[in-house]
Amino acid sequence: QGILERLDAGEIVIGDGGFVFALEKRGYVKAGPWTPEATVEHPEAVRQLHREFLRAGSNVLQTFTFYASEDKLENRGNYVAEKISCQKVNEAACDIAREVANEGDALVAGGVSQTPSYLSCKDKTEVKSVFRKQLDVFIKKNVDFLIAEYFEHVEEAVWAVEVLKESGKPVAATMCIGPEGDMHGVSPGQCAVQLVKAGASIVGVNCHFDPETSLETVKLMKEGLQAAKLKAHLMSQPLAFHTPDCGKQGFIDLPEFPFGLEPRIVTRWDVQKYARKAYDLGIRFIGGCCGFEPYHIRAIAEELAPERGFFPEASEKHGRWGDSLSMHTKPWVRARARKEYWENLKPASGRPYSPSMSKPDGWGVTKGARELMQQKEATSEQQLKELFQKQKC
Amino acid sequence: QGILERLDAGEIVIGDGGFVFALEKRGYVKAGPWTPEATVEHPEAVRQLHREFLRAGSNVLQTFTFYASEDKLENRGNYVAEKISCQKVNEAACDIAREVANEGDALVAGGVSQTPSYLSCKDKTEVKSVFRKQLDVFIKKNVDFLIAEYFEHVEEAVWAVEVLKESGKPVAATMCIGPEGDMHGVSPGQCAVQLVKAGASIVGVNCHFDPETSLETVKLMKEGLQAAKLKAHLMSQPLAFHTPDCGKQGFIDLPEFPFGLEPRIVTRWDVQKYARKAYDLGIRFIGGCCGFEPYHIRAIAEELAPERGFFPEASEKHGRWGDSLSMHTKPWVRARARKEYWENLKPASGRPYSPSMSKPDGWGVTKGARELMQQKEATSEQQLKELFQKQKC
Amino acid sequence: QGILERLDAGEIVIGDGGFVFALEKRGYVKAGPWTPEATVEHPEAVRQLHREFLRAGSNVLQTFTFYASEDKLENRGNYVAEKISCQKVNEAACDIAREVANEGDALVAGGVSQTPSYLSCKDKTEVKSVFRKQLDVFIKKNVDFLIAEYFEHVEEAVWAVEVLKESGKPVAATMCIGPEGDMHGVSPGQCAVQLVKAGASIVGVNCHFDPETSLETVKLMKEGLQAAKLKAHLMSQPLAFHTPDCGKQGFIDLPEFPFGLEPRIVTRWDVQKYARKAYDLGIRFIGGCCGFEPYHIRAIAEELAPERGFFPEASEKHGRWGDSLSMHTKPWVRARARKEYWENLKPASGRPYSPSMSKPDGWGVTKGARELMQQKEATSEQQLKELFQKQKC
Amino acid sequence: QGILERLDAGEIVIGDGGFVFALEKRGYVKAGPWTPEATVEHPEAVRQLHREFLRAGSNVLQTFTFYASEDKLENRGNYVAEKISCQKVNEAACDIAREVANEGDALVAGGVSQTPSYLSCKDKTEVKSVFRKQLDVFIKKNVDFLIAEYFEHVEEAVWAVEVLKESGKPVAATMCIGPEGDMHGVSPGQCAVQLVKAGASIVGVNCHFDPETSLETVKLMKEGLQAAKLKAHLMSQPLAFHTPDCGKQGFIDLPEFPFGLEPRIVTRWDVQKYARKAYDLGIRFIGGCCGFEPYHIRAIAEELAPERGFFPEASEKHGRWGDSLSMHTKPWVRARARKEYWENLKPASGRPYSPSMSKPDGWGVTKGARELMQQKEATSEQQLKELFQKQKC
Repeated sequence: QGILERLDAGEIVIGDGGFVFALEKRGYVKAGPWTPEATVEHPEAVRQLHREFLRAGSNVLQTFTFYASEDKLENRGNYVAEKISCQKVNEAACDIAREVANEGDALVAGGVSQTPSYLSCKDKTEVKSVFRKQLDVFIKKNVDFLIAEYFEHVEEAVWAVEVLKESGKPVAATMCIGPEGDMHGVSPGQCAVQLVKAGASIVGVNCHFDPETSLETVKLMKEGLQAAKLKAHLMSQPLAFHTPDCGKQGFIDLPEFPFGLEPRIVTRWDVQKYARKAYDLGIRFIGGCCGFEPYHIRAIAEELAPERGFFPEASEKHGRWGDSLSMHTKPWVRARARKEYWENLKPASGRPYSPSMSKPDGWGVTKGARELMQQKEATSEQQLKELFQKQKC
Repeated sequence: QGILERLDAGEIVIGDGGFVFALEKRGYVKAGPWTPEATVEHPEAVRQLHREFLRAGSNVLQTFTFYASEDKLENRGNYVAEKISCQKVNEAACDIAREVANEGDALVAGGVSQTPSYLSCKDKTEVKSVFRKQLDVFIKKNVDFLIAEYFEHVEEAVWAVEVLKESGKPVAATMCIGPEGDMHGVSPGQCAVQLVKAGASIVGVNCHFDPETSLETVKLMKEGLQAAKLKAHLMSQPLAFHTPDCGKQGFIDLPEFPFGLEPRIVTRWDVQKYARKAYDLGIRFIGGCCGFEPYHIRAIAEELAPERGFFPEASEKHGRWGDSLSMHTKPWVRARARKEYWENLKPASGRPYSPSMSKPDGWGVTKGARELMQQKEATSEQQLKELFQKQKC
Repeated sequence: QGILERLDAGEIVIGDGGFVFALEKRGYVKAGPWTPEATVEHPEAVRQLHREFLRAGSNVLQTFTFYASEDKLENRGNYVAEKISCQKVNEAACDIAREVANEGDALVAGGVSQTPSYLSCKDKTEVKSVFRKQLDVFIKKNVDFLIAEYFEHVEEAVWAVEVLKESGKPVAATMCIGPEGDMHGVSPGQCAVQLVKAGASIVGVNCHFDPETSLETVKLMKEGLQAAKLKAHLMSQPLAFHTPDCGKQGFIDLPEFPFGLEPRIVTRWDVQKYARKAYDLGIRFIGGCCGFEPYHIRAIAEELAPERGFFPEASEKHGRWGDSLSMHTKPWVRARARKEYWENLKPASGRPYSPSMSKPDGWGVTKGARELMQQKEATSEQQLKELFQKQKC
Repeated sequence: QGILERLDAGEIVIGDGGFVFALEKRGYVKAGPWTPEATVEHPEAVRQLHREFLRAGSNVLQTFTFYASEDKLENRGNYVAEKISCQKVNEAACDIAREVANEGDALVAGGVSQTPSYLSCKDKTEVKSVFRKQLDVFIKKNVDFLIAEYFEHVEEAVWAVEVLKESGKPVAATMCIGPEGDMHGVSPGQCAVQLVKAGASIVGVNCHFDPETSLETVKLMKEGLQAAKLKAHLMSQPLAFHTPDCGKQGFIDLPEFPFGLEPRIVTRWDVQKYARKAYDLGIRFIGGCCGFEPYHIRAIAEELAPERGFFPEASEKHGRWGDSLSMHTKPWVRARARKEYWENLKPASGRPYSPSMSKPDGWGVTKGARELMQQKEATSEQQLKELFQKQKC
């Protein structure tokens, strides 16, 4: 059954987790460029991660094609020894995802994401042609549906949806925005409306914010669609990092991004709360983005097992709410084998010299900012930020 | 070249990371029993993790035989569907490790760890026969050397070393103790002396404590050996969790163990500091235990690259000290592409409702404790703890 | 010169600090009832505190008549040995304030605050007669102006202003509300409008929230007045506690209230930031409430010394921005004798087992709540809170 | 009855709190010099603070003569307008203390503290003559006993005790040291032995460290005396700040000293725990130093009321363990009116951007340090610190 049949029937569809962060930690993706040439260089590593997500309960395997547009892959030049074509990367990603999907009950989704072309002010035709190159591969490899994800500007997301719709396949669209809306100031509600009008059957958010903030944003999208009397399925794939201290642009601006985020990683219990809250909000496509490891996805599947009627395969290696500790030799560890314990635990960081929140970075601190200030005669940090936004068109 | 040839020549030998924790998150190991039947059930997952460590710079691949003694594996009965023999688990572990070791420049080390037999007061002969069954496999599969690791009581560790020495292969021995010494009150210095006298060529600690505490313990071992005019190589494989708040029995007693440890995970920069400090202390076998992921091992290899003269393979996907951020579009993210930034960052947890340290759990809180109190007529928590220790012989 | 002459001339008027909290710590006020019988029992203690505020820079000395209405003082019965009449408490308060005011350049303000009569649903006539009894004393003792402060409901505050206006003296009115408005849901902007229409010449907030939140609330009041084309002077007298985690009812609901608030106490540097921000927002009557000690008031006076042209008397015992440390024997302590140091310091709590924020208390946890739930057939915590509000009329 | 009669009879003697910190906040003492000219300039402020401590339960009123030696008072030159003689300051201090002591059941103790003369390497005769000038006043004013307090070097403390003993009055001696001992490396146990041999009848610690650390130090003193078969009464007057992160020289080296210590202030419940622990350790002279306000002293008196058989006067304004909250209108605030609640509360700081612990400052950061490094050819921070110590003789 296709994605829309499942969702229309009221099924819960579980997404997968974050590839670039997981594979960075495993040694196959470079932080900074974040490109997916590993599909060609180390297919076994990509395949293994897909398998772990499948086993954890994912119903959708996204092709590992994040930032795999031609314009983006060109940036890799300086660190990928031999030239790997954009087409090869995308094809390999489709093949690997399909191979693993066939091992279980999962759909393959081809994914596109925001492009350097848009950020450097190329026009609609040029940007669309970038998406179309990836789409050609997805059609050739016959993926089950398509996802336009990680867009900061709804304008570009709409263009992506329009291109993907040319295929006739179902299209999902998620933006990496928070409650304040996109980088041009369009509200989440308005973003959702524009995406659905462009042809998306599923809308929501991914990346940039923690589960709690992301659900708040999807709620605003839902309200926007209701106000516009539009219908669509809802989707959320947040970070697996606590980010209550983010500004508008999300975790990128936190001082800990991307190499000091460890103390922010959510626990499996945090994920169970997220899954429940997402479900209660009416979201039926529930997954994760950067930081989501297989055990986080399993937590979604376990939390919603009562509704779905089954546990994922990986639960054979997991006691519900810690009950596998009931055999421990120490009585005080056995005492942790219960739901109430883990639900209420406020885990310590072991870092007494660290604060619990950070101020997001901004212009003021950098040399580049000061230079721009001189050039542009901006007089305040706020103006500088605006200039920076405009500079990106 | 064998392990002793390398260490005798002054080489730095990099160990691998933590299998049970990494594979628990990937869905192949059950927390609580922590047994390694995955070597038979899902060899591809074990193989992939070995490969990631090799690629990250490990010179030693430990067979995934933690808790793979016959007495321990019997505990699994209730959750491993079909019966898998102890021998099969150990053999598969050797085969997988060897297969990956052959892909690079790594040694295979067969490992044994503490046994339920000892904890339930079986005698020396019985306990030794448990180790000997695993050793038989290691000899048959011709591993390069042997590691006795994760011992809380030096008495049992000495028995393990004595058995392993029967093979004629080099033996390393690490205890999971802190500066206060073993569970019977033997100091780290005395533990080291006994282990070396029993035949260990390499001694140190693994697991239970964070890098800083572990190095303190190894330092005490070193001083004990010097006082006794004994020589041995030093080794450390600590947790990748910050645990400044641990009691004598380490992270097991922290309220966050094992499902809420995320905020304690060390960063790659913490690991670089650890590697440097270990090196300065004279330790030459430097690895990790629970929580150490491939990128943590890579951090050891990168920190010590100047001494070793080369970087590990996985560094092709890693800029030194964050320099891969220098191409980022935002100037304030580019400003993070430098050593000073990451060295000094005190990363926030994003958890303002959590404390930074926890009180380790103890007897008082559990029903079992109260019952024991009644039975044994103990009058204080301290007495209870002592009773519990004695109860374990 | 009177209060309005000063404010109309653009002068900055500095208020005083918190009497009930300071005198509770000195041993003269009981937490819980918080009544000011100390004016009769220990006038020397009240006089001394007034003197310290005067010396710190206060231009207004409020009579210590908080909760000194007749209906409230009756509550004290169980702990004040001999009967002290309401009139006596209020008269003594006026005498003490005037005596100290005459030692310097300060005005005396008679103050009234919210009454048990209103909370127990007495009608307008009855509530007004309570205020009138205190006003009679203020008129007899000829205070310089009047303040209606610490009102959670604008309806009662308006009644108080109406009574106070009968005297012909200038009236200031501050509510103990945050940005969400009063307990009946009236917004800060609307509260300000109603208070000015009732006759208040000065409006703002006091107590219940930290400086930052309080300024946010005054800003909303200012905007409300502008929208209604009304004019009034603005005033703020916030807590000297950091309360970013408060709910609608402010610090009363924090688990730390009132005996565990120490770690939240603001520093003098926090107060300097508050004073500057208040000034920039157009507030000209700037003081403090609970937690504000004399040195906090001095910090307001020092921050605004450039605008006012003089320092307060107590500054002879205070180096600006820590410069009195420049004579310290240790160079690293001398290094703290500068503005940049104290402005940027993030002071540690020395409490690694405490979190940085708390969840405000609510109904769920108390027996009373459960009983009410049964009586009233409320089905949720939200309903319970609403019932509680209604119960108070 | 004199101090020794009380202690010999097994009575608990409650000390007073911290004058320089309390009066700094009230506007009468300057941080940096910390000298007590307020006894002459503002006797009413000093008198009021004495009264508050008396009312809170203090059995000993120390003359406010901290840093009132002639050599120290000379430092004030630049900020005390008219010349006030050392003798006048000391005499006024005695008069005020006696006046208030006569209002209740309290003894007056004349106090001396460490001198600039010693720190600048004056010889024994010179240093002793400085103490003798203060002693002359104490004898003339007939104080009840004498305290030598706040000594970092036991050598100077011994000289002080020797001088004070010339009077024939009982002498107490407290050092501002932690478990590591005095600045020349003499252990707490040895310090105690030397002080008792010099003639002190009561020994212990004051200032520089938090209650927990201070009790640890007194315990070491007690053990030292036992080992030397000496007898003396024990005394503790710690900080009212949490300082688990201090180095050897205590809170002076914390980055928050002295203007950012607020988040470290102990609660009344922390003090009750301290009082109980001190009592259990055998200490019978229990008071406080910097940061101890009257309500902290009351907490000692309330905790030990069962042993003493009475409450202090100020307890008429204080419900035991918060029971005065039982009349609150909100049920969840009423729920705080119990011992278990306050005993277990981990109070939040409301400061999510602050850490919970700080690294003590050291040489490295200051210009002075670098200069000294050049002059002295020190090559490490450690050497620098040692040079600094030696420089002070």
